[in-house]
Amino acid sequence: MSGWSSYLEEQKDAHMDELLDFLRIPSISSLPEHADDVRTAGEWVMARLRQAGIDNVRMMETGGHPVVYAEWLHAGADKPTIMIYGHFDTQPVDPLELWTNPPFEPTIEGDRIYARGASDDKGNMLAPILAVEALLKSEGTLPINLKFFFEGQEEIGSPQLPDFVEKNRELFACDFVLSADGGQFGPDQPSLLVGLRGLCALQIDVTGAVTDLHSGMYGGAVANPIHALTELLASMRSADGTILVEGFLDDVRTLSPEEREQIAAVPNDDEAIMAELQIPALYGEPGYSTLERRWARPTLEVNGIWGGFQGDGVKTVLPREAHAKITCRLVADQDPEKIIQAISAHVDAHLPPGVTAEVTQLGTGANPYLMPLDHPGNKVATTVHMELYGKEPYYIRSGGSIPFCSLFKDKLDVYTVNFAFGLNDERAHAPNEFWRISSFEKAKRAYCILIHELAAAKS
Amino acid sequence: MSGWSSYLEEQKDAHMDELLDFLRIPSISSLPEHADDVRTAGEWVMARLRQAGIDNVRMMETGGHPVVYAEWLHAGADKPTIMIYGHFDTQPVDPLELWTNPPFEPTIEGDRIYARGASDDKGNMLAPILAVEALLKSEGTLPINLKFFFEGQEEIGSPQLPDFVEKNRELFACDFVLSADGGQFGPDQPSLLVGLRGLCALQIDVTGAVTDLHSGMYGGAVANPIHALTELLASMRSADGTILVEGFLDDVRTLSPEEREQIAAVPNDDEAIMAELQIPALYGEPGYSTLERRWARPTLEVNGIWGGFQGDGVKTVLPREAHAKITCRLVADQDPEKIIQAISAHVDAHLPPGVTAEVTQLGTGANPYLMPLDHPGNKVATTVHMELYGKEPYYIRSGGSIPFCSLFKDKLDVYTVNFAFGLNDERAHAPNEFWRISSFEKAKRAYCILIHELAAAKS
Repeated sequence: MSGWSSYLEEQKDAHMDELLDFLRIPSISSLPEHADDVRTAGEWVMARLRQAGIDNVRMMETGGHPVVYAEWLHAGADKPTIMIYGHFDTQPVDPLELWTNPPFEPTIEGDRIYARGASDDKGNMLAPILAVEALLKSEGTLPINLKFFFEGQEEIGSPQLPDFVEKNRELFACDFVLSADGGQFGPDQPSLLVGLRGLCALQIDVTGAVTDLHSGMYGGAVANPIHALTELLASMRSADGTILVEGFLDDVRTLSPEEREQIAAVPNDDEAIMAELQIPALYGEPGYSTLERRWARPTLEVNGIWGGFQGDGVKTVLPREAHAKITCRLVADQDPEKIIQAISAHVDAHLPPGVTAEVTQLGTGANPYLMPLDHPGNKVATTVHMELYGKEPYYIRSGGSIPFCSLFKDKLDVYTVNFAFGLNDERAHAPNEFWRISSFEKAKRAYCILIHELAAAKS
Repeated sequence: MSGWSSYLEEQKDAHMDELLDFLRIPSISSLPEHADDVRTAGEWVMARLRQAGIDNVRMMETGGHPVVYAEWLHAGADKPTIMIYGHFDTQPVDPLELWTNPPFEPTIEGDRIYARGASDDKGNMLAPILAVEALLKSEGTLPINLKFFFEGQEEIGSPQLPDFVEKNRELFACDFVLSADGGQFGPDQPSLLVGLRGLCALQIDVTGAVTDLHSGMYGGAVANPIHALTELLASMRSADGTILVEGFLDDVRTLSPEEREQIAAVPNDDEAIMAELQIPALYGEPGYSTLERRWARPTLEVNGIWGGFQGDGVKTVLPREAHAKITCRLVADQDPEKIIQAISAHVDAHLPPGVTAEVTQLGTGANPYLMPLDHPGNKVATTVHMELYGKEPYYIRSGGSIPFCSLFKDKLDVYTVNFAFGLNDERAHAPNEFWRISSFEKAKRAYCILIHELAAAKS
């Protein structure tokens, strides 16, 4: 048994007590009355980093909840510099009455630690600190350079982080990020998150006459903005769901045979989805599997539509205006601004006569995120997973967004390797959240192995 | 000068005093506190009918505001029996502060009598009573049989009248109805209303998954009910406005060359409509003029649409459901029930995969109304208009509905000849409603001439 492994074994109970201490801090970032608790959690993390022997531990102000930063940079300039990410804030707890135990009084039952923040993300983020301590205590040094970036505003969308990271680009420079926030495919099946879809959002406002009109007096001779809007929206996609907006698909990277194999290796049960959602059929772009549609193809989705009379009964109105909100999920190498422009141009080109239309971008958009197949972090993580699970990880993607992955890519030009051990059944964001003691033990060991493998891969 | 003309001239001031008396009764049918005033107006009408020498004057209960009925049936079975229609109730008066004079204190200025109900419909409905009195006083008899049907609930949509007329079909049997509610095209231009569009209404509800979904997790693989609804709605009409619902147009009577000439004779200014409505272009079914589209072609109009997120900002939701309300204006010989069935079948046939849809009829619908070109009432009215105005009347239609025209057609199987003298500038339903003294004089004379012409036409 290696030195770090013995150390982790000896400290097992102490580490559990520390995790329970950490979980007792009600660091709910969305509630102003818990702002001090978020800061207290940050201070707890700082103390734990110092205790582990990590240098330059500091709390950095962001304008909102703080970031805790630390580093250990003594491995030498020829060794990789990796930044470990996690967050010490939690989701709120309501509805409180659905919790079996108080959410900030952690309770152990069998392999489970019940508490708000247990899985997301206090357990996961504490593991690499303890792993580094084990390496330092047992080996006296680390084989790579490490930075630590723990934030207190992940659960509210990290509003201050883009500016904050931008301003501190040199401090946070690294080869890539390891995220201790996230999870694995299953208890016995590892996975690596390699892609996220981007986003852009817009609103279309179609206007007809200066006022609502009597549908008897004018119907048939004056354009109806609702009809015009439905024609515009229908013209944007074919009946089978293929996006028809001119230029929309131009920059979409074609899935390589290797990528399609990786996606096809991930279990997917269409019948189970149909049963769960109670829908008569799945639906989507021909030529792609369900997972490809959800992970690797863009969407143009109407999120809301409204216009005219929505009450009970009948109103014979030819309405003045109609509106739709659209978001598009984007994939590599689409650009949110170009997509907004393409949709605007489509609206101009296809606008039915007799009405005017305006397209307004909403928000700033998010770039799609796709790691290169040969990214060294994924290769090393695969090696570690093979050792821990005896299985190759699935290469998975998410159809949604993870802000910090895009953030570090956009601001620091580095990818984020997901290396965390949450599982889907652990009720993150819901009552009775829990984490597995076995996942905690696995996570600490995994980070020890990973840090050694990273050193081996680089040299 | 004929006898009736002398009589009208002698009684001119007395008739005006009587009209002013009638106008002082605040017979607002929509306000419960004025229900007694509506009844008082009915009693005033009964007294005036008796004074004119008309028989069997009675108030008939409907379950709501009453109907006043009377008759003069001594012309003989070989003479036509005509029923004169009008209403003694009025619209409300708010906003009261916009009235220059109190609405129920009639005020004469020049040719104008200002009062609520002056044009719509007390002046118009009093004229035929006074005309019949003039004929009876001067000639001792009438050349045709007459029935009088004056109601007190026109301004609230005559809710009790369908059942009431149905129950009294024999009493109200006649060759046709003359409506003393309505108007002419202009002060110097007569018109005859020969067509109204019918109506049917429905709602379409499209449902997807059992709950709202995350557009990132499911977008691209699960059908969006808003998209499905927009595709359904867009499929119902071509880009140029032609209705594509299978079977929808099957029963539409083709406009004859004579009908198209009649419609083309009516002045219409497309540029003025565009300027008034502030729209960049008119719009509608190719091959038809604006008036043809408004009067003689059916519509399929979305009156309202809603689904998903309608608030500020962005919500990345794949919504559970989407809804639309539709009304169709119908023309001869379309049937509201058949149209609802055609749209239901279209929805079934064109429903995109992955969603379900339900079509629900709203209300009972209204049949379209179109008088035969050679209807004797219109021919006689044309003769009278030629004598009064020196001009042929325009044959006009309305794109909307007039409930009593459809009511008498459906329940008594008779058409209604519009023979009234309101003008568009007289602010019916608005503050400072007025009627013209010259129209009052013209209306009385017109009914005297018309009654004689009707006798001549029949024999």
